[in-house]
Amino acid sequence: MPQIKYYWEDFAVGQVRDLGTISPTREEIIAFASQFDPQPFHLDDEAARASVFGALSASGWHTCSMAMRLMVTNFLCETSSLGSPGLEGLKWLKPVYPGDTLRLQSTMLETKPMGKRPDVGMTRNLWEMFNQHGDKVLHMEGWGMFRRRTPAAPTP
Amino acid sequence: MPQIKYYWEDFAVGQVRDLGTISPTREEIIAFASQFDPQPFHLDDEAARASVFGALSASGWHTCSMAMRLMVTNFLCETSSLGSPGLEGLKWLKPVYPGDTLRLQSTMLETKPMGKRPDVGMTRNLWEMFNQHGDKVLHMEGWGMFRRRTPAAPTP
Repeated sequence: MPQIKYYWEDFAVGQVRDLGTISPTREEIIAFASQFDPQPFHLDDEAARASVFGALSASGWHTCSMAMRLMVTNFLCETSSLGSPGLEGLKWLKPVYPGDTLRLQSTMLETKPMGKRPDVGMTRNLWEMFNQHGDKVLHMEGWGMFRRRTPAAPTP
Repeated sequence: MPQIKYYWEDFAVGQVRDLGTISPTREEIIAFASQFDPQPFHLDDEAARASVFGALSASGWHTCSMAMRLMVTNFLCETSSLGSPGLEGLKWLKPVYPGDTLRLQSTMLETKPMGKRPDVGMTRNLWEMFNQHGDKVLHMEGWGMFRRRTPAAPTP
């Protein structure tokens, strides 16, 4: 298990992190869609051409999962992350096509102690994914829970 | 391609649909996490026992993807679905463990025409997933776009 480098106290509003790139192949897009999102426009070129997407594109859940992979590999694995209770919003803004290069960026929006657990803090992050043309394809705002380096003092 | 049974006009606020069940195996949970969410508590029993989840549990994105599979197979494939612009909220409420039986239920919250496209209508749905104990594990509110059976009359 990697060393923990960042605890909750190390996060500050406004911090921006570049979390690397990932590029899905046509085979990966079809494999994910076959298992989890078998809509014709994610599986078949002809159906995709007739769809609003214009060509074979990745399931939105595949895009989220690829963003998660970058988050874990390039950020969470070095942190005291305890998981996430969820997201406040998620937008699939543009289709993701085979061979696209997707770059993930995170911006810290808010940090706050977790009332009921003095050893845990919460963060609210903006996660944005851009393709090689600079178009934003994914926008998410989500909460994270991180262990604190030093638990909060008990409230009197 | 299956026959379209439901167009946008066929959806009404308050409709509740039972969209079947899905049960992830331990192998599927580890395979998904290895590819997309390699945090120790999704891969390794010992790390999982030491985590807030108490035992090996599925990536939240795996849970969402399983919900999508039920949506597509038991609902969207019979509709004029054109995809989704995103979600307004997503909550991972309880861990999902190997062998859990997850049931998906959808409730129609809102329907409205799509201003800029007379042939398309929007829906806002609540998606809820429950485990075999009746505990809600996933809560999502999301938008869908569906082709209309009859395009809206042009506004004068």
